[in-house]
This record gives sequence, C-alpha cells and structure tokens, in this order.
Amino acid sequence: MRAVVLEGPGRISLEDVRDPAPGPGEALIDVKVAGICGTDLQLARGYMGFTGIPGHEFVGTVAVVNSHADKLLIGARVVGEINIGCEECALCAEGLQRHCGRRRVLGILGKEGAFAERLTLPIRNLHAVPGTISDSQAVFIEPIAAALEILDQVVVARSERILVLGDGKLGLLVAQALATRGSDVTVAGHHEAKLALARELGLKAVTPAGLSGTRPFDLVVEATGRPEGLDLALTHVRPRGTVVMKTTSQGPAAFEAWRAVVNEITLVGSRCGRFEPAIEALVSGDIKVDPLVTAELPLDDGMAAFDKAREPGALKVLLRVAR
Amino acid sequence: MRAVVLEGPGRISLEDVRDPAPGPGEALIDVKVAGICGTDLQLARGYMGFTGIPGHEFVGTVAVVNSHADKLLIGARVVGEINIGCEECALCAEGLQRHCGRRRVLGILGKEGAFAERLTLPIRNLHAVPGTISDSQAVFIEPIAAALEILDQVVVARSERILVLGDGKLGLLVAQALATRGSDVTVAGHHEAKLALARELGLKAVTPAGLSGTRPFDLVVEATGRPEGLDLALTHVRPRGTVVMKTTSQGPAAFEAWRAVVNEITLVGSRCGRFEPAIEALVSGDIKVDPLVTAELPLDDGMAAFDKAREPGALKVLLRVAR
Repeated sequence: MRAVVLEGPGRISLEDVRDPAPGPGEALIDVKVAGICGTDLQLARGYMGFTGIPGHEFVGTVAVVNSHADKLLIGARVVGEINIGCEECALCAEGLQRHCGRRRVLGILGKEGAFAERLTLPIRNLHAVPGTISDSQAVFIEPIAAALEILDQVVVARSERILVLGDGKLGLLVAQALATRGSDVTVAGHHEAKLALARELGLKAVTPAGLSGTRPFDLVVEATGRPEGLDLALTHVRPRGTVVMKTTSQGPAAFEAWRAVVNEITLVGSRCGRFEPAIEALVSGDIKVDPLVTAELPLDDGMAAFDKAREPGALKVLLRVAR
Repeated sequence: MRAVVLEGPGRISLEDVRDPAPGPGEALIDVKVAGICGTDLQLARGYMGFTGIPGHEFVGTVAVVNSHADKLLIGARVVGEINIGCEECALCAEGLQRHCGRRRVLGILGKEGAFAERLTLPIRNLHAVPGTISDSQAVFIEPIAAALEILDQVVVARSERILVLGDGKLGLLVAQALATRGSDVTVAGHHEAKLALARELGLKAVTPAGLSGTRPFDLVVEATGRPEGLDLALTHVRPRGTVVMKTTSQGPAAFEAWRAVVNEITLVGSRCGRFEPAIEALVSGDIKVDPLVTAELPLDDGMAAFDKAREPGALKVLLRVAR
C-alpha cells in the first residue's frame, strides 16, 4: 500500500509498504480521510523519536476482522481512539488506557498510523460515525476530544472569563469547546485571518498586544505550541486562577515557576479525551469544523500536504485516501 | 532601635534605625523572637529587590495601639499574618488579602519586617498565641500555615501515597501537615541528619537515589528550593497525579512542561496560608517544631545568625530580641 513514512528527523517520504495485518482483537481499516496535526509536524522534526507511518486523526471503513463475532462491523464507518493500553494494569482497568505506562499510540508511539491506505486498531478503540457527520468532519473527532478533555478536568462556571492563547486548530477547537458552557471566551493569536474566523465562530479575538491592560482571566488555556506560551499564560491569569497546558513541544521550557507559586495558580496538563462527547458536539453543531479545513489533498500528494500544513496561515490539511 | 537592614544584594548589616510609628488601625509590637526563613536568605541575595528590614516570622507583644477601642490588646502575645491588603479590591473583600494586587508583605514587599526590636502591623492581621505555645514554637505559626495551605487547596485522600521533595524546614513541616491526614508520606532529601529527624517524626525518609524504582506517587510536593525540583517531581508523580509547587526562587525554571501535558499532571502553586489551623496544629501537637530549631542567637548576633542559617545542615535559626 501507499503510505507517508518517517525515517528520522526531516526524513519523510511517500513509499510503497506492506499492508498491516490485524492482530487478535484488531480490525483492518481502509482509511478514507486523515488529518495532519501539529503533533505530526513535530514528529517530522524528531519529537518522540518516532519512525514509521505517522497520522492519528482519521476516518475509515472496517475491512477485515479476525473474530466471527465481529463480522457485523465490516463496512462500518469508524474513527478510533489512538491510545492502546496493555489491558493488564490498574490504569487500563480504570479505562485510562491513554495513561497506561506501556501504551502504544497510533502514529506516535510504537504503532503505525493513518497516513496510509490501511491501518489496524483494536476493535475496542473504534467508534461508529453517525451519518450526519461527513468524512472531513469526522477527522476532527480526535482533536475535539482533546479540546473537550478540559471540561472533564476543570470545573468551568458560566460566569468565568476565559482566554485561549493560540489561534491554531487546537486553539479554535478549545475555544469553541469552552464556549459551550456559555462562558466569555477570548482567543489570542498572531494571525488576522484566524482571528477573523474566531469572530465568525462567535468568539472574541485579539492579538497578544490587544491583551495588555485587560483584566486577568479566571482560566487561561495555553495552546500556542510554543514554550514561551506558559509565561504569557501566567501574565494573564488571575491570582488563584487556572492555566490549562496543551502544548507538547518537547524539551525544557523556561518558565517563571515562582509566579505560579506566589499567585497560587493551578496548572493542569491536558492531552487526549473521550470520543463520545466529541461525536455529540459535531452532531449538535456546538463545535464547527468546516471553516477549519485549509485544504484536502490526495494521499499521493502527501509531501505537498505536509508543506501546506507547515504554512503559518494554515489550519487543518486533510489527506484524502479513498472515497 | 537595633535592626537587621538589607541595603541591596549581599549588603546586610546590623544598624540603629528609627522606631516605626503605627498608622491608623495598626499596632506597634515589641518583637520577642523572629525566625530566619529560606525566603530571607533569598531576599539577602536580591529576590524581590527588597531593601529595608527583612523578617516575617515572629512572635511579639503589643506595645502601642492608636485607638481607645483596642487598648485591651496591649500586652497581648501575638503573631501576625504577613500580607497587608488594600482592603478595597474584590480579593480583599473575599478575605484573600494575601492575593491583593496592591498588597504589602511584612519584611518582603513594601513593609519593614521583624528582624528588629519593634514592628508595626494592622491589628486585623494579629492572632493571640495560646499560653501552651512557647515563643520559639510560635515563630513557626507562619510557615506551618504555609504548609497547611496545601490542605486548603488539594483534596488528600487517606489512601494516597505522598512524596515531599526537600528535607529543609518547609519540607519537614509540609510532610507533617500531610501526615495529619493519615497518608503515607515519604520525605526525600540530601541531608542524612535531616532525614533521620524526619524518621523520628514518624515519616519515611530517603535520599533522591533511594527513589529510583519506587512506584509513582499520587501527590508530590516540590519544596527543594531549587528550580530543578520541578522535573524531579514530574519523574515521581503518577499519571493524572498532583504536584504542589512551593519553591519561590526567582527567575526562569527550565522544566519539561510537555511531560506534565502528556501525563495530565495538575501543578498547584502554593504559598501562604491561614493562621488558625496552624495554631491548632501546634496546640494539639500534630505538628512538632522543637526538633527543627538549629540555634537561637540574640538580635545583636544577627549577622552570625544569617551565616548559621546558610549552612547546609541548618534548619530554623531564631533571633531572640527580647525575653
């Protein structure tokens, strides 16, 4: 099959590789559409030391299952949770496979990903996609789940003033997710077109300069993708307020930790989330993703798609693998 | 009066200065004993840019009040909360003077401190000291309040495994504070004598090397006083666990923020606390402080006391100002 293959930092290419074979409890899935995420761009630069096929946002069709009991799944249109736990530890028993110490992660850690014609995933990771959700919308279920994860971690009162630092894909999803609680949400970023989009989505939007002199916020989400975002968050959060950390760029971040101590700030690391509420938010229209699609390219143009996704003005770039 | 005066980084000396005069709502207090805190050693190196008389841990006797209504306070043995709010903002109205944006802080920010024969503080900041608490014990009320603050911020279940990084004064108070919840508390530090003291106090105690291979902890308190403590905390906390940040050494701390994101760690900045539970913990004996006193020197030996407090093996050094 055709696949985008990462062989080391900066060494990424389109290649012909062997089809994956589903193991026990796994399904073979024909990928329909996959999305390029900020994490994929980091992986291509060497994050996590990943080599192989990247890609963890996808929608596809179940093609092969090993067990007779699962035969009815064949042909189902599905998305898949990306963390694969050991199913033996206490965290897996709690349903927290995404924190299992021996987990594999689709297209990120020890498991070939979705920028390919086919992938395999445990059947327990799969979710059926309702017919009202299009293929390109379905690709957003994984990042929407990551955005909604914040609402599983932090109590957000209707009266709170919220700031989302970062006007990228994740920032715009996080801001919409928080706005579902009726809160007053401001997005701050550097890209005028993305800020205009935020306003179209009913959010407030400013440049970082526009934040100077504003009243401190109750909750600040750091989704800039840059290590220096953490200090900016500490500048704009009120004493005893909360900062949600979403940036995963590897390496040490220099950070004025003493300010968090003096102002008794709570910082909450936040990563992947549950798919169920993400699917609901797409069905209800509470979170809109169509304006976030910058381009859709065929898998054979995978390298051009990566280039496109790296452009400063880009939001989501999709790879169309099959109709 | 005699006072320890800080004139700039490293420029600290014993001097004769004018007595302070109590303003409206303030009391003039004759200092009996004051304690040297890690923050004082940092101030002497330039932290906060403080100049003047440092010192914020003290017990004293009310000598002068301005209002007739407060006359009964004269002669009372008191300790004092160190943050002085503006009493006009929303945070002060909530009783959170310690987070007021215009606060002054005794011996730390805009207010002369306790390493002197006399100081002034608003009467509302004062707490009477029960007769069963000795002078040298009373000096610990402020740092015990800071240790107990954690219990106001974080829900600590009886079954939790807790690690306190740092075997200094604050670490040993924090460990005792958390052990009052019946939890399993381990102190980690570099000083064998301090670790032995921790064991005498009924705590587990290990060197950092002794932590390798231990099961991750539910709650880790970072009280090392060093910026690198934060990464050590992230190494030993379980996924979705909590790290309490107590270190206030100024400047950027390099910190692997992405690990907190991936493991969804909650980091809680923690500073000053309420005095009432600290007084109760001393009266009940739940927190023991006598073994934490390294030396007591007269105010006139203030410089020697600072030198003593800087020694690696030192815990609390007290300045005896009056009997």
